Parts: sequence; C-alpha cells; structure tokens
Amino acid sequence: MFETQYNEEMEAEARRTEAAQAAGNMRVGFVGLGIMGGAMANNLQKAGYALTVWNRDLSKTDQLVAGGAGRAASPREVAEKSDMVISMMADPAAVAAVRDGEQGIIAGLRPGSGYLDMSTVDTETTLASAQYAHQCSALFLEAPVAGSRKPAEDGTLTIMAAGDRALYDKALPLLEKMGKKILYLGEAGSAARMKLANNLVMGGMLTAFCEGMALAIKTGLDPVQFLDVLDSGAMSNPMFRMKGAAVVENAEFPVAFPLKHMQKDLRLALQLAEKAGQPLFATATVNELFKKALAAGLGEVDFAAVNRVIRG
Amino acid sequence: MFETQYNEEMEAEARRTEAAQAAGNMRVGFVGLGIMGGAMANNLQKAGYALTVWNRDLSKTDQLVAGGAGRAASPREVAEKSDMVISMMADPAAVAAVRDGEQGIIAGLRPGSGYLDMSTVDTETTLASAQYAHQCSALFLEAPVAGSRKPAEDGTLTIMAAGDRALYDKALPLLEKMGKKILYLGEAGSAARMKLANNLVMGGMLTAFCEGMALAIKTGLDPVQFLDVLDSGAMSNPMFRMKGAAVVENAEFPVAFPLKHMQKDLRLALQLAEKAGQPLFATATVNELFKKALAAGLGEVDFAAVNRVIRG
Amino acid sequence: MFETQYNEEMEAEARRTEAAQAAGNMRVGFVGLGIMGGAMANNLQKAGYALTVWNRDLSKTDQLVAGGAGRAASPREVAEKSDMVISMMADPAAVAAVRDGEQGIIAGLRPGSGYLDMSTVDTETTLASAQYAHQCSALFLEAPVAGSRKPAEDGTLTIMAAGDRALYDKALPLLEKMGKKILYLGEAGSAARMKLANNLVMGGMLTAFCEGMALAIKTGLDPVQFLDVLDSGAMSNPMFRMKGAAVVENAEFPVAFPLKHMQKDLRLALQLAEKAGQPLFATATVNELFKKALAAGLGEVDFAAVNRVIRG
Amino acid sequence: MFETQYNEEMEAEARRTEAAQAAGNMRVGFVGLGIMGGAMANNLQKAGYALTVWNRDLSKTDQLVAGGAGRAASPREVAEKSDMVISMMADPAAVAAVRDGEQGIIAGLRPGSGYLDMSTVDTETTLASAQYAHQCSALFLEAPVAGSRKPAEDGTLTIMAAGDRALYDKALPLLEKMGKKILYLGEAGSAARMKLANNLVMGGMLTAFCEGMALAIKTGLDPVQFLDVLDSGAMSNPMFRMKGAAVVENAEFPVAFPLKHMQKDLRLALQLAEKAGQPLFATATVNELFKKALAAGLGEVDFAAVNRVIRG
Repeated sequence: MFETQYNEEMEAEARRTEAAQAAGNMRVGFVGLGIMGGAMANNLQKAGYALTVWNRDLSKTDQLVAGGAGRAASPREVAEKSDMVISMMADPAAVAAVRDGEQGIIAGLRPGSGYLDMSTVDTETTLASAQYAHQCSALFLEAPVAGSRKPAEDGTLTIMAAGDRALYDKALPLLEKMGKKILYLGEAGSAARMKLANNLVMGGMLTAFCEGMALAIKTGLDPVQFLDVLDSGAMSNPMFRMKGAAVVENAEFPVAFPLKHMQKDLRLALQLAEKAGQPLFATATVNELFKKALAAGLGEVDFAAVNRVIRG
Repeated sequence: MFETQYNEEMEAEARRTEAAQAAGNMRVGFVGLGIMGGAMANNLQKAGYALTVWNRDLSKTDQLVAGGAGRAASPREVAEKSDMVISMMADPAAVAAVRDGEQGIIAGLRPGSGYLDMSTVDTETTLASAQYAHQCSALFLEAPVAGSRKPAEDGTLTIMAAGDRALYDKALPLLEKMGKKILYLGEAGSAARMKLANNLVMGGMLTAFCEGMALAIKTGLDPVQFLDVLDSGAMSNPMFRMKGAAVVENAEFPVAFPLKHMQKDLRLALQLAEKAGQPLFATATVNELFKKALAAGLGEVDFAAVNRVIRG
Repeated sequence: MFETQYNEEMEAEARRTEAAQAAGNMRVGFVGLGIMGGAMANNLQKAGYALTVWNRDLSKTDQLVAGGAGRAASPREVAEKSDMVISMMADPAAVAAVRDGEQGIIAGLRPGSGYLDMSTVDTETTLASAQYAHQCSALFLEAPVAGSRKPAEDGTLTIMAAGDRALYDKALPLLEKMGKKILYLGEAGSAARMKLANNLVMGGMLTAFCEGMALAIKTGLDPVQFLDVLDSGAMSNPMFRMKGAAVVENAEFPVAFPLKHMQKDLRLALQLAEKAGQPLFATATVNELFKKALAAGLGEVDFAAVNRVIRG
Repeated sequence: MFETQYNEEMEAEARRTEAAQAAGNMRVGFVGLGIMGGAMANNLQKAGYALTVWNRDLSKTDQLVAGGAGRAASPREVAEKSDMVISMMADPAAVAAVRDGEQGIIAGLRPGSGYLDMSTVDTETTLASAQYAHQCSALFLEAPVAGSRKPAEDGTLTIMAAGDRALYDKALPLLEKMGKKILYLGEAGSAARMKLANNLVMGGMLTAFCEGMALAIKTGLDPVQFLDVLDSGAMSNPMFRMKGAAVVENAEFPVAFPLKHMQKDLRLALQLAEKAGQPLFATATVNELFKKALAAGLGEVDFAAVNRVIRG
C-alpha cells in the first residue's frame, strides 16, 4: 500500500542533498520551548543548526543558549534574525500571541524567508498564519507532530507537513532531525485536520483501554494478566504498554501530553466534523469524559488521567 | 512485568511432558465447528489427536471426518466417547443448547472426564456449566479465546482459561496446538469476564478508528496517509492494519468476528459493569452504534462493518 | 385524538355498576406495602374493601391491620383468603420472591380468582406470572403505575393494565380507587413495555432538566428565573415544578421514586429496545449517569438525585 | 417562589405608563422578517407602531409595507430612521451581516437611540453588539425569545432581555406586544445564556420523547395510548401534545423551529458549558443526533424531525 517508485526515491534523495547543503548556512529561529518545543530545538542544535530562540518564560532558553543559541527579546527579533522561523505553541491562542502584534513573528518576517508552525491548531488559525506569511512574501508550512515527550526527545516524532511545497523541500533536513516519519499532505490546513483525526483516535483508544481496565479491576481480574491479554492480540500497541502500569494503579501519570491539550483537540475535531456533516457519537462522549477530567483539575497532567474520572 | 521464574519454567516443562504422554491416549471430542471451532479442531487433528465431532449443520463435519474423525449423532454421544469434550459455540443460548437436555453434553459426561467450553459466554452460563460438570464428577474449564479466523487457523489464538486447575494442566498440550498465548486466570468465571473486558476495548478501539477515518475522509484528507500516520505512532497495532483498507473503502469486510457477537459481548460487558457499579459512558455509546449496525442487517458480517453506520 | 364514542361510554358505565356490586363481596389481598403499595392499599381500605395483607417487614402492616385488615403469615395465605390478590413489589426479583415457592402467591391461588401484579417488571417476569396464574385456572392482569408517592397517596396514579380482560372488568372499581387514569392496553406484557417507555422519557427529561440547570448555574444565571422561563413555555410540566427547588439547591430529594428503580427501568428499556432492534443513543447515556449515581450510593434516594452526578 | 412585592408592582406600572406615552412617538425599525421576525413585526404594527423594515428577501416586507410600514434599502437606513432598531436574525453570522459594514445597523445608529437584538446568538456576538452600540452612544438590549411560530403570531412569546436597563424600560411596552412573559435578566450576555440553557432542555426533552415513542412503536404498543399515558402524568406538557401526532406518524413536521437552529443552539450550549467546566454527557449525545439529522438534509424542517434519525 505504501510502495514508492524507484525514480521518486532518487529524486527525493537529490532534493535532500541539495537542501542539506543549503541548510549549512541556514539561520533557524525557534519560538516556544515547552516540553515539546524544547526537546525539538535541542535536536536541531545537536545537529549543528545555529539557533535564535525565544520563550515567554526566559529560563527555558538557558540550556539552548548555553549550547550556543542566541536569545532574542521577542518573537519578532527571532524572525528578523532567521531564514526559517519555527514555532511550537500549546494552542491557537498561544500561536496568535507570538505571531501577531508589534513584537510578533509576522512583524519581523523577511521576504523570502519561511515560517514553519509546528503547533497543533485549528484550520482557521493555520490559514491565517499562511495568509500573513504570504503578505510578507514569505513561505508558510504547518507541521504539527504526533508523539509526545519521549519521541520529541529521541527525534522520532511523526511530522505532518502541509502548505508551501518549496518550504517543505527546504525544511526537510531539519524535520528529519526532529522526526522519523515525515509526510507532506498538501495545501495548508491539511496537517491541522490530520492531527485532529489522529488525536481523536488516540483519545478514543485510551478511553476504551481505561474502561476495559475499570471493568477488569472491578470484577476481580488480575490487571497485569489483562494487560498481557491485550498485548498478545490484534490490539497490541505501544500506547497501552506505556500507559498500562499507571492506568492499573490509577497513579500519577508522567506528563507526555497534557490532558487539556487532548480535550482541546477533541473539541476542535468535533467542530471540524460538525462543519463536515459528520456525526461522531463515540468521540462526543469521550470528549465529555475529558471535560469532566478538566473540571476535576487534571488539565495539566497527562491525558491518561482521564482514567481517574472513569474509575470514579 | 511478565517475568517468569526459572523454577516455574522447569516445573511447567515437566508438566507439559507428562501431559503430552497422557495425551497420546486421550480421546478428544469437539462440539461446534463454525468459523472458529472448525479451524481449532483442525489444528488438533493435524497435531495427531483422535477426534469425535458434532455440529448442528452436519456438512461442516465432512472435512474432519475425511481426516479420520468420528462423527457423533449428538453432543451427548461426543461426551460418551471422549476423555475431554471441547465446545466452541456462538453464544450462551447455543452453549446451553448443546450442553443441556437428553442429547446434551452433560447427559453423556463421564466421571473423571473433562468439559472444556471455549465459547465466549456470560458468567452465569459458565458457572452453570461448571456446576453441571461437577455434578457428573467431571472437571470443568472455560477457555474463551481472543483472536478471530486467521489466528484460529494459524493456531495463534490467545486462550484465557479458568476453572479446575487439574483439567488445565491436562488440557495445556491441546491448548498449545490452538493458541500461542495461554493464560490460567483462576476460578471459573474469570475467563468470561476477561474476554468481555478484552472485547470491550476492541469495540471501542475500532469505533475510534472508524470515527477518525470518517473525519479524515469527509474533510478531504488522503485516507492512506491517515493510515500511515496512525501506523507510525504509539497507536500502531495489527487490527488497524488488518481492517484499514476495508474501513477506507467502506467495503465488504471478510468475516473475522461477526458483528452480532461483538454487540453481544458489549451488552454482556455493560451488564457485568452495571452489577459491579462501574459506569462505562463510552462503551454504552459504542454499543448503540453496534446495535444500529445490527438493526441495519449487518449482524452476520465482520464487526468492522460498524463503519457503515458511522460513515452514514 | 382521545375522543370516546357515546355508546362505549354507556357500556363502560354499565360494566362499572355491575362490577361495583360484585366488589361489595370481594375479598382483596395485598402483598408488598412499601412507599407505593402501602399508600395504594390504604386507598382501597378507605373505600371499604376488606383486605388481607402481607409484607416482608411486618411493621409496615400495622396501620392497615389497625384499620381492620387481616395479617397473613405468607403471600400464599393472602392468596388463599382472597378473590383477588394484588402485589406491588420493587423489582422482578421481588415479584418472583413473593410469587414462587411453597409460601408464594401461586401456591395459594384459587381457581377462578385473580392475580393482579402492579409492580414494574420486565416482559419475561409478567409473562411467567400470567402462565403460572393460568395453570391455577386463575386470571392474570399486570397493572404497573405511572406516578410516585404523592399520586399514590391521592389515588391519582395512571394505571396501565394488560392481560385477561375479564379480570380487568372485575378489577376496574378497585383500580379507580387507586388511580385517576386507567388504561387497558391488551395482552399481558403490554403494560410492562408501556411503563418502561414512560419511565425512559421521564429519566431523559429529568436529565435534560438537570443539565440545563447545571449550565445556567455555572454561567451565573439566576436559577429561579430559569425555572420561570421553563415554566412559561411549551415545556412547562408538573415534574419540573415539583423537582425544581431541590434541583436548584442540589439538595436532599424527598423520595418519590427511588433512583435504583429508575436505573432498573432504564436498563430494562434498553434491553427491550435491543431485542426490538431499536438503538437508543440518548437513553444509553442517561442510563450511565444513573449508574454513576447508583455507584455513588444514591440508589435509595429520589431519582432526581442524578443531579448530584451531573453537577459534579 | 415568584411573588412580587406590591411596591415593585406599582413602580413597574408607573414605568409602563410613562413608557407607553413616549412610545406613541417612537419610530421603530425592524430588520429580519423570517418566520419569527415577520410575526413579531406584525404584532407591533397591529399595536399601532410606525415601522421601518428591511429584509434580505424583499418580498417578505410586502405585507408590512401594505400595512403602512416604510421599506428601507439597507439595515443602515432602518437605523437612521428609527429611535429603536429591532433585529431578529437566524444566527450569529446573520446578526453580524446586518449589523456590520457600510450598510449595517451600526453605521446608521444614532446617539441616544436603542439597538435591540432579539436573535438567539452566542455570548461573543451579543457582547460585540453591545460594545458597538455603546461606541455610537446608543443603548443595547439583547432579548432572545422562547417559543416558535404560533406564540410569535399570538404575541405570547417568552422574552428574555438583558443589557442596558434604561433601554429595557423604554422597550417594555413593545416587548409586551410580542410576548406574554418578559424577564429582565441583568447584564448583556445573560439572555443569550438563558436561551441556550432553555433550548438545551428542549432538545433533550424532545429526544427523550422520540426515543420513548420509538420503543413503544417497535414493541407493538398503541402510540396514541402512549401519548395518553405521558399526558396524564407529571411529564404532561404542551410540546409533547403539539409534536405528538407527527412524531407518531414520523411525518412531515410543520416548521415551528428549524432543526438547524436547534443544532446550533446545542453546539453553543456545549461550547459555553465547556468554558464553564460543566460536562454535559446527555446533551453531547443529543447534539450528535441532531448533527446526524442535519447531515441527512433535515436542517430546514422542524427540529422534531430528529425523530427520523432516531426511528432509523
């Protein structure tokens, strides 16, 4: 199903080589150094890219600056000093906050440069970013990621890029430092939708897992045997293995992907589906469970904490 | 988490050897030769076991009889001619139909023999089977399976056994011909509950997958890229790969696990959870989707056909 | 829509007169004197019927015995001493408990007498009751009620009767002492189904009411104005007025209809719908909310306490 | 609960008299003459108010113009010629369309005049309207209504007003021509929230009704008896009576309240609840049913057509 023609492979290789050479002289900006962004920027720095960085909480820039990065006073300054500006923010509002206004990325974006937003946002936000970049005669690429803290640190994220193809080709060597699987999905907005569809499945799978575990435990089964059963069949997957022990114990979950972001993505997925005329009965119920977890103060912990609400 | 002590391994090996020798002379009965049962009995026959078989639709016994099996006139006759009777039926009513009455398994069950029901049933049914077997001075083991047509044919099912430990030890060599992963879960009833918890997760995962795909397709994404994204992250699992192409096309699904059985398991899981005081919001909604598919006449096709109802 | 022909009215009147005369000499038994049954039996006694009563907790018979009723030692003795036995139990298991066995109603049911079960039960239970009565050459009528404590005390219940028409005609004068609206629905089983459909709507309406109130309160609206708005439009109904103040305060609810019985009816309605091939998405979710309330220990209080779970 | 002090009543009466005199000379504008707006404007005209009207589809102004109203070329012209502009639009986008831009209401709004939006909109829209009116030194009142075509025609709507109290006092005589129950709820935004909470309950009640009816019909009950049962108990309400026959027949529903607007209100209610940290499990499922109806092309018919989706 995923076969690739030999010729295509050759051409891709050629493009990569060319891009890699160009990258040698590329000045890269990075805005947003949270759990994900910090790890991703670190991988770029380790690969030799010269970075200019900015983060609202300045202390998070320390490590990169110690490693040689320049610290900018604003997102605008990052843009002014970069050939390619990457941003990695928590939500649409945060993207707008670093993008718009006098000290925003757009205010500093130079003609011919590229703006690469790797945040997970709604379609409206990404289309606005594309429009603003084009008004500056710059290129735009949205490139949200699948995967959380560990893959971000290991450079094994899945990256779903969409927007200007020329910028994609130029950015590919950088993307390959941050991710293992890089897909080009087409026009801007496609990646935002892909991310939402992906996270919808993730939220539903995790919920099914927690409900099954709740039933197992409440009816006296050995939860470790239940994990074993799940892992030995057609449903076997890394997520159940990673979250399994914490779900069994109903314990603290190391924050890989904050629950509030999962709930946001479920909300955006439902909104998108509504516009597309697609009912999503199960997802709507899953969203309410995540909303209940959010209301219970679990927004900042890992999204697997929806387990707390399910276990009751 | 799943480590095994060396000594336990040694003892298990000894038990297996002993059992295998005993098995050489074991007469095995098999009742219920549907998609699953037929494939499982076939694996026992290939392994050299002498079988006596019965099926309501006699034509399904032909292949095994051609391979040397004896054909019985009733479940009772199977029991009368066997040291161990295995049954593999579609639902609790079918289990009772071959178990009870003048021509049923219990009527022919000999003292000291074993009754091994591998059907997926509710706790009440399996506890009744255990009681009836004990009244005949026979042993009982429930041993429902995870996995559908392909693993049944390949002998790679996961088998969850519970009930009389002595019968488990005796049956293990046979179980290892039908399955790859064999678990002993404790007292009778445990396996029924484990199967329901497992299938609850399966129904929820498949639904999440179909809803994500529906969103992807309705909003113009490339469904093959969506499969690729899912397969490259923490959710990657064999089920999505197996069902993926059919879900994309919303096409005929080869019957691995009939939808009506999945809906039955969801219903039983919800009943069990209700008794255990465990709300299951997402599963209740998933169950309604499967009920809708059943009402739409999709009961006999693969459970992945819930996709038809979701896609609308 | 509900017009009645003049002739039918005349015939009904004639039937009533005849029945009333016969009733003068009728010995009536009453089994089950809980919140509902106690109030209903009391209304029969006030209307002059000679009662023989039984209740598991004997103390609940005191008031009726003080009023002239005979106290029986068992449901069987009630049947032996009555021309018509009425039972009003909490659930199918309780109906079977007073109906079956050596000391049960059926053991004492005399040929030509009538067995009138006013409990809310599933179809299987009511059909079994009908069969057992017929085996004693007695008649059977199921007659579950709509309405809770207050209408039971006031004799203004809605009574949905089904089963043997001859018994209905004989019982009508008694039913009219307990209820304001008496319907004959046809063959046995119809009333059980009607009651479930009715309570399904009640559970759904109450849930919608509580969710609306939760939204109003959480967003700073005046809850009394919200009650006023609801009461001034097309949704205006007695239930919202009765439960309104307690829902606003999220307070103790006087027990009109215990929550565990509502949850039981929702479960039975979902089971019935499943057999009939009718998905009920909203009811399935409502049922989970009631299950959560039950798990939170609210089973014995009024069903409006589902509000506690919704308000969170 | 709803008592009113004598003094307050006296003051209110005095305010009304004063307002009524002022109203004699009041020039009233009306923008948006759909099912609801047309009937409401008609009631104002019958009460003697001099109207200037505008509607996108001009033909809908004919009747009012024949009755003496002036026809404006734009919403702006309506505002320029009025002391009080009333708008009654289908949704937030439509409100913005007549409010904003060169030909919009705000462009023509005169200092000291009043802008009264009776559309059902989200909080953001109404707060923007208030802000724009205040920037013109005009007053603002939101006043969405409960009730559909018939109450609009009969002048018996429930009107929930919020915003500038001075404008409320001035508008009260007009509101009393359009509605029977007029509530002042406080600061701008309160009425939008009240309307959403009200419609959330309406959508949930109607869904519960349709699911109960589906169960009744699918299990062989007489639907007319079911309506009778519902109407004789604590749930008795005008909506079930009005929609009953059409729900039974699963027939064409005369458009009282278009389904797409109910779905919009459910979506807005869920969004509002999400911001307020209030999960709404049942409402989320009800919303999916309405989304499914919308996807089935039922957006323009009455919201009771969700019955089609439920009945399947």
